[in-house]
Parts: sequence; C-alpha cells; structure tokens
Amino acid sequence: MNTFGKRLTFTTFGESHGEALGVIVDGIPAGLKLDEQFIQNEMDRRKPGKSEVETQRKESDLIKILSGTFQNDEGHLVSTGTSLTMIIFNENQKSNDYSNIKDLFRPGHADFTYFHKYGIRDYRGGGRSSARETAARVAAGAIAKLLLKELSIIIKSGLLEIGGIKSDTLDFEYSQNNILCTLDKNKEIKQLEAIQKAKRNHDSVGGVVLVKVSNVPIGLGEPMYHKLDGQIANAMMGLNAVKAVEIGDGVYSSQNTGSYNNDQITSQGFKTNHSGGVLGGISNGDDIITKVYFKPTPSIFIEQQTVNTNNKNSVCNLKGRHDPCVAIRGSIVCESMMALVLADMLLLNMSSKIENIKKVYNI
Amino acid sequence: MNTFGKRLTFTTFGESHGEALGVIVDGIPAGLKLDEQFIQNEMDRRKPGKSEVETQRKESDLIKILSGTFQNDEGHLVSTGTSLTMIIFNENQKSNDYSNIKDLFRPGHADFTYFHKYGIRDYRGGGRSSARETAARVAAGAIAKLLLKELSIIIKSGLLEIGGIKSDTLDFEYSQNNILCTLDKNKEIKQLEAIQKAKRNHDSVGGVVLVKVSNVPIGLGEPMYHKLDGQIANAMMGLNAVKAVEIGDGVYSSQNTGSYNNDQITSQGFKTNHSGGVLGGISNGDDIITKVYFKPTPSIFIEQQTVNTNNKNSVCNLKGRHDPCVAIRGSIVCESMMALVLADMLLLNMSSKIENIKKVYNI
Amino acid sequence: MNTFGKRLTFTTFGESHGEALGVIVDGIPAGLKLDEQFIQNEMDRRKPGKSEVETQRKESDLIKILSGTFQNDEGHLVSTGTSLTMIIFNENQKSNDYSNIKDLFRPGHADFTYFHKYGIRDYRGGGRSSARETAARVAAGAIAKLLLKELSIIIKSGLLEIGGIKSDTLDFEYSQNNILCTLDKNKEIKQLEAIQKAKRNHDSVGGVVLVKVSNVPIGLGEPMYHKLDGQIANAMMGLNAVKAVEIGDGVYSSQNTGSYNNDQITSQGFKTNHSGGVLGGISNGDDIITKVYFKPTPSIFIEQQTVNTNNKNSVCNLKGRHDPCVAIRGSIVCESMMALVLADMLLLNMSSKIENIKKVYNI
Amino acid sequence: MNTFGKRLTFTTFGESHGEALGVIVDGIPAGLKLDEQFIQNEMDRRKPGKSEVETQRKESDLIKILSGTFQNDEGHLVSTGTSLTMIIFNENQKSNDYSNIKDLFRPGHADFTYFHKYGIRDYRGGGRSSARETAARVAAGAIAKLLLKELSIIIKSGLLEIGGIKSDTLDFEYSQNNILCTLDKNKEIKQLEAIQKAKRNHDSVGGVVLVKVSNVPIGLGEPMYHKLDGQIANAMMGLNAVKAVEIGDGVYSSQNTGSYNNDQITSQGFKTNHSGGVLGGISNGDDIITKVYFKPTPSIFIEQQTVNTNNKNSVCNLKGRHDPCVAIRGSIVCESMMALVLADMLLLNMSSKIENIKKVYNI
Repeated sequence: MNTFGKRLTFTTFGESHGEALGVIVDGIPAGLKLDEQFIQNEMDRRKPGKSEVETQRKESDLIKILSGTFQNDEGHLVSTGTSLTMIIFNENQKSNDYSNIKDLFRPGHADFTYFHKYGIRDYRGGGRSSARETAARVAAGAIAKLLLKELSIIIKSGLLEIGGIKSDTLDFEYSQNNILCTLDKNKEIKQLEAIQKAKRNHDSVGGVVLVKVSNVPIGLGEPMYHKLDGQIANAMMGLNAVKAVEIGDGVYSSQNTGSYNNDQITSQGFKTNHSGGVLGGISNGDDIITKVYFKPTPSIFIEQQTVNTNNKNSVCNLKGRHDPCVAIRGSIVCESMMALVLADMLLLNMSSKIENIKKVYNI
Repeated sequence: MNTFGKRLTFTTFGESHGEALGVIVDGIPAGLKLDEQFIQNEMDRRKPGKSEVETQRKESDLIKILSGTFQNDEGHLVSTGTSLTMIIFNENQKSNDYSNIKDLFRPGHADFTYFHKYGIRDYRGGGRSSARETAARVAAGAIAKLLLKELSIIIKSGLLEIGGIKSDTLDFEYSQNNILCTLDKNKEIKQLEAIQKAKRNHDSVGGVVLVKVSNVPIGLGEPMYHKLDGQIANAMMGLNAVKAVEIGDGVYSSQNTGSYNNDQITSQGFKTNHSGGVLGGISNGDDIITKVYFKPTPSIFIEQQTVNTNNKNSVCNLKGRHDPCVAIRGSIVCESMMALVLADMLLLNMSSKIENIKKVYNI
Repeated sequence: MNTFGKRLTFTTFGESHGEALGVIVDGIPAGLKLDEQFIQNEMDRRKPGKSEVETQRKESDLIKILSGTFQNDEGHLVSTGTSLTMIIFNENQKSNDYSNIKDLFRPGHADFTYFHKYGIRDYRGGGRSSARETAARVAAGAIAKLLLKELSIIIKSGLLEIGGIKSDTLDFEYSQNNILCTLDKNKEIKQLEAIQKAKRNHDSVGGVVLVKVSNVPIGLGEPMYHKLDGQIANAMMGLNAVKAVEIGDGVYSSQNTGSYNNDQITSQGFKTNHSGGVLGGISNGDDIITKVYFKPTPSIFIEQQTVNTNNKNSVCNLKGRHDPCVAIRGSIVCESMMALVLADMLLLNMSSKIENIKKVYNI
Repeated sequence: MNTFGKRLTFTTFGESHGEALGVIVDGIPAGLKLDEQFIQNEMDRRKPGKSEVETQRKESDLIKILSGTFQNDEGHLVSTGTSLTMIIFNENQKSNDYSNIKDLFRPGHADFTYFHKYGIRDYRGGGRSSARETAARVAAGAIAKLLLKELSIIIKSGLLEIGGIKSDTLDFEYSQNNILCTLDKNKEIKQLEAIQKAKRNHDSVGGVVLVKVSNVPIGLGEPMYHKLDGQIANAMMGLNAVKAVEIGDGVYSSQNTGSYNNDQITSQGFKTNHSGGVLGGISNGDDIITKVYFKPTPSIFIEQQTVNTNNKNSVCNLKGRHDPCVAIRGSIVCESMMALVLADMLLLNMSSKIENIKKVYNI
C-alpha cells in the first residue's frame, strides 16, 4: 500500500541503502508548469548533511524527471496528464554500518515489526522503513505545491518546540533560514543547546512542527470518510516518528468550554480560529493550522537491551550517522504531505456541485 | 466518500432528521456468527437520552439487518460473504427546533462549510454532518468486534478527562458502568460537576477518550500509506468534534529523549510501551493505546455572533437538545472506529508473506 | 467488493429472497434535480412479470429514497452531495420453490462457486448471485442518467438478436415499446417465436443487447487503467449471463485491414465510426456503440446432471419462475451500467487540465 | 489512473520516446523468489524487432529491478513485501519519424482524444498512448506469474486468427515457438501470407488471441463489482487495439439454448466448459478461456484524411516502424494481464471465509 491519495495520488519506492528512491505522481492536471528549480530547492531543504544538527550522510538528492512531461509551444516543461515519475539515486550508502545489527532489532525502530510481518527485512538502514523514504514524498509534494500555487495557496512550517524548548513566536520567514527551522529567533540558541547536549550524551531529542496554510478555498475535504482533518492526521501520523497530531487548538480544545472554543462568525469572517480552519472535515477558508509531534530519534549511541531474530536477549550498540532531532528535517516533509493532501482535496472538490460541472463542460 | 476501509469496508448513509440511517459492511469473511444481541448492546451504549449528561433526544436505535446473512446448518445466523446491511429508523426528530436557524450558520458547526461546498444543506440538526451519523459506525463496529473476537482481540475505552478534570486511573471495568464512562471512580463527582456547571451556564465542555486494545497480533498495518497509526489517526480525527489524536506517549514523546522513549526489548517482550503498540506503522503485539481529544459541544445556549446564508451579520440562539460533553458518547464510537481499522488491517495482513498464501490454499 | 466506480460510486446490497435490495449512490454533485417519476419509470422498465417473455414473479419494485436529498428553495427535491440511498422491498419471494435444490448446484448458475468460495450460500433464488440484484443497479443508473441529462447525453438500447434471430434495423424508438425490446419491428415475430419454442421445450435462449450513447463529450476515460472501453467491458461482463462484449466493430475489426478500419477525420468529424466512439480508451465525441452478449438463461426445466454439496452425483429438476431470455430485461440494465460508467468518467475528467481547475475556482 | 488492481497492484509510467518506462508492483507477498531470468525471458517474448512481422524498432528491453527485493539467507533474491520497481530504458527512439505529424491526428490512434482531453500531447510515437507501454505490463505480469507458479497455475496463449485466417488447433507448445505465435502449425503459412500481403499494400491486419489458464483454484473473483470475468474484460479491453473480449463460448453462447450451454456437473467435474471457467464472476476450477480481438494496426502507410490541431482538413502520410499485426506481440501482453488479474484475485480471495483467517493466524 505504497500509494497515497484518491484523485491526485503518488506511489513511492526505494530503500535507504538501495539503488534509488522514486515516486510516480498520478492525476496531475495537464498543462501545469513544472519549475524544476523549485522542485530541486524543495529537495535541498530536506536533504541530509546540511548542518551539525543533521545526519552526516551526504546525499545530493538530485531529482530526475523520467516521464509525464512535455515542452509546450512556449517552451515550458509542463505536465501532460500522464503519470509523472521522479527518481533519486542513492550516493552515500554505507551498508557496513549495519552489519553488526543484521540480526538484531533496534529499539524504537520498525525492525521488529517488519521482520515479523514479512519474515524478511532489508536491515541496511532500516530498508524501506527508513525516513529516507520521505525524499520521495518531498518530490511529490513539490508538484502538489506547484498546483496549489495556481490558486495562491501557501504552505509554511517551522519548529514549535525542540527538546522541550518552546518557540514563542511564529516567525515563518525566520524558520526558512536557520538550521533548526525554528519559529522563534530568541529560542534558537536554547533549542540548539538542547540538541548539542543530547548529542554529547549519545542521545536524541523530540520536537514539534507547526504547519500553516493560508489562502485556502472554502470547501476542501470529502465527508464522511475522506475529511480534510482526517486525511491531514493520516498523512502526518503516517510519518516516521510522529506520535500526535493536532488541528487548531487540538488538545487544548478539550479543556475548554464551547463558549470559548466556538469561532463566531461575522460578515468579515471568523472572529477566532480555534478550529484550525476545518469545520465538519471541510476547510472553512481560514488558515489551516496543524501541529505534528515527533518522538526523539530512536537511533541513539547508548547500549540498549534487545533481542535477535531468534528472540534471544542481546544488546544493541548502534553505529552510523543519524539526525539527533528528526523533527527538524521533518518540517519540510510535513509541508509536503500537507500539500499533497490539499492538492488531492482540490481536485476531489471540483465535482461538489452541479454548477461546477456546467462550468467545466460549458453548459 | 462515504466509504471507509480497504478490505473490510463500510459505507454509511442518513441524516439526523431523515427517515433512517444505515450502513453496508462489505468484505466480512463468510461464516462469522452474528450475535444480534451483542450488536444491539453496542448500539445501546451509544444511544442518546440515557442520562442527564446526554441529549434528551430519545431514540431506541434498534438495529435491523437487511442483507448479507443466512442461517447455517447449526441454526446460527452467520455472514455469507456478501454485503451486510443494517438500518436504524429515526424516531424522535424535532425539525421545528431548527426552523429559526434555517438560514444561519451555527458557530463551531459544519453548517458554514457544507453550505459553501454544496450550495445546499439540510439544516435540520446538521443533516448529514450530525454526530447522529455515528450510530451507523457503531453498528459496523459491532460487526468488526465480532470478527476481532475470533482472535481474542479486546478493545476497551473510557474517559480520561472531562471538562479539564483528569482521571488518574485506567479502570476499564468501571468505565463500562457509569454514566460518564469515566476511567476514574474517584474523579467521577468532580467530572460530573464540571458538566453540570457548564449546563447551568448554557455552555459545554470537552473531554478526552482513551482506547486500549489488548492481544493484538504482530504485523497489522500496511506501510507506507495505510499504516496502522495513520489509519487510527484518520479514523479518530474524522469523528465530529475531535481535534487531536495521540498514539502511545503522543505529545509527551516529543518532549523526551530517545533513551527514555525507546522501548527496549527482551525475550519476554517490550520493557515499556511508550510507542503505544505501533512501530513503523505496524502493530508490535503490545497494547495499542490511543487518546482522542474532543472539543466542547458546539451547540451552546448562549447568544453567539454569526452570519446568514447571505453573509449578513446575525445572532444565533440555539434551541434543541444536545450533549453537554460529546466525548462521553464518543467513547463507544472511538472503540468502534478502532475495531473497524483493526479488522481491515487483519484482513489486509493476510497476504503479507508467501507462507500465509500456502496455508490458505493448502500447498 | 460491492462498490462500483471511482468518483461517482454505488454500493449495493440484497438478495433475491431477502427482505430488501438497495443501493447507496455516492459522489453525486449537489443540486441535481431528482425526478422521482423518472427513477420509478426506469425501475418499471426492468421489473419482472410484464409479459409472457419474462418471469412471472410479480414485484412492484417501488423505489423509496432514504437519504441524500433535500427540498431546495424552489421546492424541488435535489441531491445534497451526501450519500443517496434507495431501497426496494421484495414482495413476491417464494422460497419453497428452492427447497428441493437446497443442497444441489444448478448447472450454469453461481451456486457451485459461491458455495466453494464462501462455504455457505443462500440457496433461495441464488441469494446474492441472483439477477434480481440488478434492480439496485437500475436505481443507481437512473440517478446517473439524470446527471448525464444535464449535458444532454442520451443512452438508448435494444435487442440486436434473440435466440439467434438478428435484428436488421436499429430502431431505438421501437425498442422502447415492445415486449422484446427488439430493435427490428420486422423480426419481432420470429424472435418471439424463438422464445416460445424454447419455452415449449422447457429450454431458454440467449440474446444480444446493443447500447448506443449520443452526444458524448470528447475526453471521457482515464488512461491507463480506467479507460472508457475497459470500464464498459467490466460493467457489462460483470452482469449475470454476459459472456462477450464488443466496442464498435468489435470482433469484426479483427478480420479487417487498417485501411478499412481506421476512421478518417475531417473538420466535420469522423467519416466512419468503426471505433465505436472510443480511441485510446477515451471518448472521441462520436456515438459510443457497445454490444453485449447474454447466454441463455441457465434455469431450464429439463432434468440436468449435477452434484450435491457433498459432491455426490445427482439430478437437478428446477421449479420456479424464470425469464426464458434474460437478455430482454438485460437491455435496461446495460443502459444503466453504461450511464454509471459515463457519469463516473464525467466527474473524473473534470480535473484533466489546469484550465478546468481555474474555471471551477474562478481564477 | 495508472494503477491497476486492488490488492496486488501495479502502477506504470513512461512514453514511447521518453527516457524510460517502468512499473511499481505493490502488494507482493514477502518471500517470493524472483527469478530474474524468467522476468527477462518474458520481456524478450514481447520485445520488438524479432522478426519480419514485427516493428523494426530495436529495443533490448533489459529489465532492471530498483527496489523491493533482498537476498534471503539461502542467497535467493526474494520480495520483501515492499514496493517492487522495475525500469526499462528506451534505446532506439527516432523522434524525427514523427516531426511531420506533430500537429496532425493519426486516424485510428489516440492522438485526437489525448489532445482534446489534456490540451497537450507528446506526439512522438503516441507518447504515453503507445503500445510500448505494455512492456511495463509484461514486467509486472512476470512477477504475477511467479506468484501463480507457487500454486501451479499455468497461463498459455497464442493466435487464434490472423488477418481473417483461423487456427483450427490449439497447440500451445507450437505457439511459443513460431514468429506468429499461431496456435495452428498448418495455418501458419496462410496467416503469414495475410500479413505479407497487407505489408505489400502498406496496410495492416487484425488478429485474435486466445488465453487459457489451467489449474485454477475454485473461488477467484469478488462479486459484485470485482468479478473475475469483469476484470478480465477490463484488463483485455483496456489494451491498445482491443475491440472485443469473450469468456468461454462468448458470442456463440448468445446463439444457443440453455440445455446446450449449461455445463452439467458430475462428481468428476464439469462435463463441458462452455462457461470458460467462470460462474457468477468466480472461477469454478475449470480452465479459464478468453478470446481477445485486436483491430488492425492503425499505423498504415497509405494516405489518409485527417485534421490538424486547429481542425483544418489535412492528409496524414505516416513514416516509421510498425507491427503489421499488433495481435502477435499482444499475445504475451494478454497473458501478462491475465496473470495480474488472477494474482490480485488470489490475494483478495484469502479472506473469503473465517476458516482461512484462522489458518493464517493459527487459531
């Protein structure tokens, strides 16, 4: 089940230490201009090894488009309405890092569950279960963002918390331009120190990503069982290391009264946005706000108890290169998943009423 | 998009003040014994009007099975492998309650988004967007539970928090037998008082449901994009009023270190369960733990600002009958959704490895 | 797998001798006027017992709409964009007709395969495998036709052959108004005689339905794997008793040369229509032509060899009431399936190009 | 909609004159041995340029597996349960062949419909609509065949008719070993002459492929709307140039009586196989027989009337390299599609009854 979405779908493949990763994006309307530089920029935002707070695995993560495009009469590369494929070749696999854990299950990782479900696993860097798979999501997400741009929908994100240190501001300009992707310039040093301390302790920390979407049309989301909030939750919780998802006030809503929590309405719009832009599973035109909670990286360099594939007690001593806080590079991945959910909803919503059909078919 | 699931699916219909609600459950293996009393008991756990903390709308919510069953040779009613349909006729609609809000959007409700998406809405009790729709989910969930019982999988739930008052114990026996479905006998009075206070103030409160699943086989969940945690998140966030979902330690995970959060493994099993029973989107055999955060009921009896369908400023004064805390009756609905997700995953997982295919086809 | 379609879907339930049959139609754009008289008329075209060439089972097949509609401001019943459910209660079941074949497999029927697949079967009239299930398809098809009417798409059908007697004309007016639904007034008597002869012999005959769709927009069909011709083939071959499907010249195409078979194009349109209106799996704007081949009714009143559920040799002597030529009532069912395929394709095609998206979202 | 199947799915990409074609196969049970030589052999059976009756485009069609596999402990390459990707690089594109028809619609091709649906098209060899896309299907089909082999299911095919010359025998050994893939050694010369004559006339001929599947388990096919015969029809009719599909006696059934057409049953099995191995949309254990009718290749070298993209009258004079009878190389493609349908059905059928679930979960 490596396909996501209903009308704009993407299907991914590839393992951490395999030859390549890639994605087929399907359902893109024909005639979308494909800004290859933008796609590569998105990849660059996710690629590893950019700073001390990221894994030192070096990957250029160059995107190559294999199908689904053509030059239109003005010389632009555009989508043709057929399946668009992008591929990324792995360059910096070090399989040897994993030879000592070939028969062990790393605590906090998917080794245990993959082995028992499938009876075999690619142990090199987690194989398919590696977060490296998210490179393909970001590639697909870049296409979705290009589609959303046609409607001026803008997605931004940043770190709301790192190692327990909260950001107090939501500075989305700043988050694009610091190695922590933090939303708060004044907390950057403390947040960095939290990571550095964890690294010194051979440990890791968690973090929280906030995603905000502006200029969303009213009407996105398909009740009952393909609701906007439900699909955002699915998209985010399905990311490696994510353990909680909030829409709008989230957890805090549950502690409040209706008179506080209801967003009253005026002819100028909603007076507040406790809902996070979603009512009844459908966008209400206000900003969509989601918070995504990442657990600390499970790869730590402290001896841990575990078992081997024969269920014998053993110890796990990891080597290799890992992000001390996966939430940081998770930020762009959350944006990408949000873009993919919204682009899908945008297409699905087109047939919501007869008048839309008449517009398209000119009647 | 009124269908949920991939292999065991259900499709629902019906409005709050329409003639009937119902569900078609599809993909049930043939030969499942259908304990009608159990199904009705599940319906009774959700039905309204059982106590002062619930809406006073009286509905018997009697389930009638219309198709998909047959008496086997031992005289048991069993599934036949065809689509199984259940219907519930509405009995206690009072459409008049809604005549004054016919052209208004109730704050916190889906009125605004349904009207803009579809250009028309059934204003009577929210029409399709009413939480009454969850009756059909509980009926489907009862079938899923009967299937899970064949594998001795047990789902329990209760209220972890009501109106900001936390339960300190997880007493799943007690939660089945009190009007609040609370998990903590000692907090029951305080929690009830929180609701009573809100009612006096014509207001409402939020709450938190905890769902626990025991005896889960290892291997449920289909990476990459139909993961167990992702689908639980989708199922829960797609419920009316839910604004946050956690798996395992959830939000708290993001504040911890890897050395704390990783569940180390011994030959007897996992030493801790911070993960909530899911690793890499696949069940690891430990209890599945989910927390579901419900906002306060949006129907409150305080004057609120709103607009009408022509976007003119107006005020909303609600009448009618409503749950002061929707999380309470949400408890059984969360259980049902969990059962439906797990039953689907159970069937999907059957083809995970060649050896399973050989078992089924006797080779 | 009782759901058909991708964007406009329908999900059916019900058995030949159960309490009711029904259908949930999902994905109907909101605001579609629901002409209940038209829907009932379609049901009446399919209902049994109208003439000597049909089964004598009497069913009024009255349609009741249970959900998904609302009266708009002009007083019309319209779709609301939510799941629309229709139900038909069975009235004239005679289960006793089947008591003698409870443990036997009727040759040519699905008894054998249902029993082996599911381990249990509802033997009364074939249970779910009965062609009575098509009543639900016709109800759904009527909704699809109402949608297609908004674009002036017209579907017609009739019998091209009965019992080996070919129709030489395609008189779609006449086919609507004779008990055989034949397309050729001059062949009606011979075709009727073929049926009467089979009845006298306690036997049955096959037949061929031709479906023609006019005024089809160019562009319907979703390559690669949801092509228009592929889905028509699936829809028709999935009907009980159908053993062959042709598009356009069909079998005859395979015997010709490219220079004959290619439809050359002028600025006024295609010069011929050997293709049957489909090129590359997409409608080309010309009439869609499909021929659907029905085998003779398997229920015959001649003793046949068979086995019982313990695989012991036995004989099958059928009683009951059956159509001597199922293709006749199959005609309206083929129309309905065509309508459902086209309506689905109509919605799917809306997002084929960026300019359509701009039209719907007014940019 | 470039994904086919429900449980075993494949998603394809690539154009005739693009850089590469490929496929992601998803849902393969883990532990399937991947015989790369077998996969390449299947590719070789389809690859162009092998004889005078095929296009002279030379492609080695070498398969490269990019993901989804791992070496098991015995050193075999096996599936891991993750998405398996195969890629084929194009080698012998001659885009110049198409420069003169850049703005013209070739009669009988999808140029017209792709242009109108998408507003843009890759005119080089038909782009995505080229039959070259079937290379990806054959690659996926090879994987499906490896899965079917585990159950000893065998698929064979051959040409039943070429240019109107019928084969009288069904010699599946011979069909594997002659350039026409004909089923009748004695008709080979006449069939070849029919092709040669068409070539001399700058024309093309049609043909008919017969596919036979032996040793099929009873129970494959998912009523109502994912029936075995319906999906075979979809799979075959969705192939380029196919205009008719028959199951079993097909068209001939419609001309017969029930007493002839019914397959009577004895404790040794069915006495005849008019049904083609499918009853009620489910396999009955007998051989599955399908006939697939291909129209003549639309690419002919005779001047034809057409229009350009501005709908001005024009003439089309094709150059390039084409199969004079696409049915011949269609034979292996039909086998592949049959394998993919059956493999999907095999997995779907696993959950048909409770006892299968108990087998897999050891209860």
